[in-house]
Amino acid sequence: MQFTAAQIALIINGKLEGNADAQVGSFGKIEEARAGQLSFLANPKYEEYLYQTRASIVIVNESLELKQAVNATLIRVPDAYSAFATLLAKYQELMTQQLIGIQQPSYIAPSAKMGDNIFVAAFVHIGENVHIGNNVKLFPGVVLGNNVQVGDNCILHAGVKIYHDCVIGNNVTIHAGTIIGSDGFGFAPQEDGSFKKVPQIGNVVVEDCVEIGANATIDRATMGSTIIRSGAKLDNLIQIAHNVEVGNNTVIAAQSGVSGSTKLGKNVMMGGQSGIAGHLNIADGARINGQSGVTKSIKEPNTAVTGTPAYEYASTIRSQAISRNLPQLEKRVKELEKLVQQLLAERVNVP
Amino acid sequence: MQFTAAQIALIINGKLEGNADAQVGSFGKIEEARAGQLSFLANPKYEEYLYQTRASIVIVNESLELKQAVNATLIRVPDAYSAFATLLAKYQELMTQQLIGIQQPSYIAPSAKMGDNIFVAAFVHIGENVHIGNNVKLFPGVVLGNNVQVGDNCILHAGVKIYHDCVIGNNVTIHAGTIIGSDGFGFAPQEDGSFKKVPQIGNVVVEDCVEIGANATIDRATMGSTIIRSGAKLDNLIQIAHNVEVGNNTVIAAQSGVSGSTKLGKNVMMGGQSGIAGHLNIADGARINGQSGVTKSIKEPNTAVTGTPAYEYASTIRSQAISRNLPQLEKRVKELEKLVQQLLAERVNVP
Amino acid sequence: MQFTAAQIALIINGKLEGNADAQVGSFGKIEEARAGQLSFLANPKYEEYLYQTRASIVIVNESLELKQAVNATLIRVPDAYSAFATLLAKYQELMTQQLIGIQQPSYIAPSAKMGDNIFVAAFVHIGENVHIGNNVKLFPGVVLGNNVQVGDNCILHAGVKIYHDCVIGNNVTIHAGTIIGSDGFGFAPQEDGSFKKVPQIGNVVVEDCVEIGANATIDRATMGSTIIRSGAKLDNLIQIAHNVEVGNNTVIAAQSGVSGSTKLGKNVMMGGQSGIAGHLNIADGARINGQSGVTKSIKEPNTAVTGTPAYEYASTIRSQAISRNLPQLEKRVKELEKLVQQLLAERVNVP
Repeated sequence: MQFTAAQIALIINGKLEGNADAQVGSFGKIEEARAGQLSFLANPKYEEYLYQTRASIVIVNESLELKQAVNATLIRVPDAYSAFATLLAKYQELMTQQLIGIQQPSYIAPSAKMGDNIFVAAFVHIGENVHIGNNVKLFPGVVLGNNVQVGDNCILHAGVKIYHDCVIGNNVTIHAGTIIGSDGFGFAPQEDGSFKKVPQIGNVVVEDCVEIGANATIDRATMGSTIIRSGAKLDNLIQIAHNVEVGNNTVIAAQSGVSGSTKLGKNVMMGGQSGIAGHLNIADGARINGQSGVTKSIKEPNTAVTGTPAYEYASTIRSQAISRNLPQLEKRVKELEKLVQQLLAERVNVP
Repeated sequence: MQFTAAQIALIINGKLEGNADAQVGSFGKIEEARAGQLSFLANPKYEEYLYQTRASIVIVNESLELKQAVNATLIRVPDAYSAFATLLAKYQELMTQQLIGIQQPSYIAPSAKMGDNIFVAAFVHIGENVHIGNNVKLFPGVVLGNNVQVGDNCILHAGVKIYHDCVIGNNVTIHAGTIIGSDGFGFAPQEDGSFKKVPQIGNVVVEDCVEIGANATIDRATMGSTIIRSGAKLDNLIQIAHNVEVGNNTVIAAQSGVSGSTKLGKNVMMGGQSGIAGHLNIADGARINGQSGVTKSIKEPNTAVTGTPAYEYASTIRSQAISRNLPQLEKRVKELEKLVQQLLAERVNVP
Repeated sequence: MQFTAAQIALIINGKLEGNADAQVGSFGKIEEARAGQLSFLANPKYEEYLYQTRASIVIVNESLELKQAVNATLIRVPDAYSAFATLLAKYQELMTQQLIGIQQPSYIAPSAKMGDNIFVAAFVHIGENVHIGNNVKLFPGVVLGNNVQVGDNCILHAGVKIYHDCVIGNNVTIHAGTIIGSDGFGFAPQEDGSFKKVPQIGNVVVEDCVEIGANATIDRATMGSTIIRSGAKLDNLIQIAHNVEVGNNTVIAAQSGVSGSTKLGKNVMMGGQSGIAGHLNIADGARINGQSGVTKSIKEPNTAVTGTPAYEYASTIRSQAISRNLPQLEKRVKELEKLVQQLLAERVNVP
């Protein structure tokens, strides 16, 4: 698809400077863009690239004062980065909307109900009594178990697997290879040392506007639901155990894990490779540093923690700094011991 | 499927109180259950819910003394939780048994041999000379490489991939997206700084009654076998490297990893996100705390360790506590230095 | 396939001792091998097995002096292990070359272009304008998005998913379940506490001779490319974030992660479960210990670091050793305090 500068200026409500008929079909960084590409200049540090760029159209800030001639057509807006991001989002929406139809071979149980404008790629498997809303896009290899519900405007990328009875809200995006609704890790120890499986008969509920990365795993509840509240953003390879609740707009970076029955509040942030033990409550706005291991509930909202076991951020950083200098501290203690021994020895001589 | 209170009482050998014809078709927590659901009350703390629940049937302890009238039909047993768990297990078994047949399109090599009562979903790919036992259930997208063997009563969830020549025992459950038999990570450094692949020609052997979570990875041996012994339970996203042996009834929590050629004994427990270096021996019953990093063999059975590098649990906890208070310890050393300097200065004045 | 001792001796340029017509069809460790298998003896520690082995052919070092009679046919070469590895590599190459053809059902967009000698398994999905080189092998469930390019001699194992517009070089092997090109984790915080997605319109470029393990994830760049340079080796379950660059021949062990926009030099080594924060530069040859967390750029080539946060290896090990003995250090401080108090008390008595 090609767009003219005039069309783009209309969409982002910008002022045209240059050839209104200039055409672009894709996007590029200003320093790498080729002819036929659209770029933007937001950071004044990169202004020099504007005069060299081969991009056909560049979105710039209204306030920019040109220091020399520019080959590209310019579109001026109050905030170039924001306008560019808006354009990208609209473009991706357009691309996604064009995906319509049911490729063959796919497997759709006769009892499944599907909305309008959906895309079902080849090798998608849809079980009995599945309900799918409007504008849903299912990429190759998606598997929806029996009774799964998927709301409107969802994108499930290649190979996403959702076990039976799980519920996905509206405007949810799940990246390739992610598993929703696998059994929680529940085994009862037996007298002979073996383990007996505790059946996991709950489900997973993913609310609206959630995005989940690639190859993540979210286990179904033992009973009831594992819940991902609306607006939460989960990165690649994260693990959410059974009966966990992740609060609204909580953000979990890659390779982090949350153990069973823990409840995260709203707007919590977990850094990469961090972990939280089971049966804890994490207050709203808590910030958990990368690789930290939280072993106690966090009761105070907006608390920052770090380390394993995790403690309040600032004091831990102080302790870690001294810890780094332990050889020196030990040296000081040794020196003191010598001096005190000397003093003690001398003392004997005091009459 | 619907069951009457009379049928359920028969199955779990309980005493009926109320309407023997009450029917249920699913399960719910006592505080959330709807009409037509079965629930249970085991913990006296939740007794109040018994008088409000909309569940049609509730399994309760024999010893329970009602404090007011109950709408639900009750079934009394010695241990309500255990009876409920038994019922769930039987129900899931029944559901699984009903999965029979071969959906189309699936790909089954002509040389593959398959037992009775198996289920092959659409988009399953079965290679040459594969042997599959009785009552095996293969969900959509399962891939079995050439010469793979799968025993009786196994469940391989959607998208499980088993590379050629691997062997799966009886009563094994593997959750969605897990990979068995990928190449071990073996590369020989070359003089020019590049790496030459060491061919990985062993396999993986998973013994009986093992359960493996979702999106886990178990590498094949360089030569010989990577072995998961019977009864072991492995959680989501765990990594087992080449030539590892995991002992009987060993339990490994999510996102943990075991490096090459390490041997875990029986009934070892690894907490979430823990790791073990290569070529180590871990004694029976060892307990490795979450996020710990084990760098030496553990020789004493039932040892608990924590930290990175991991040391014996109790002493590490003491060290960590002092580590937390290092700023205070440093203050004490500074105070001592001041006093000793003072003493040294005064000493000069001593005749 | 069967090979005679004479054929094998020819391939590895070895000297035959025994029956030149002895046949083998597979490989085994010398202590486990069965009749009809080929084995090797490189380490003199295992020489005793040579006299007991049931292997039909054994590759041994030229220099070996037999202490008793051997049943197997021997092939003598300067370096038995190296000859065996060469043979294995050739064997695997031969096996892979035999995989040719397009299994049905598969989905290949009409605009896709494919080279010679390729294998497309059933349930492979190839999008519009995909270009695939010669000798490429696509296992079941592989998904290639629109405009993906794959070079010559690549092996994509079962369930590998490559998003649109990504580029894979020559001689690349990717193991089962790995995802290339999922969206980077970019969300702009909004005033109401929610997050707005930052469109991710870059791609991933994987250069020549890269090997990537199972169930790994490599995100596409926000703009531009996430790059894996030639010769890099990445293990299972690793996470590479958007706009990362991994240098030539860099090796990343399982479950490690690299955050956004970080640039790794050449021949870097990351131990298992290690992590690197975003926007850092890691010098050539840096060695990052297992489970370490790197929070600052590493400027000096070949630096070894450990710990979270990670510091230079040797000094950190010293600090950790003292840290282990903190209870003792505290005891020494307490003893000093007692003595100093005593000295102070006595001082009063000094006239």
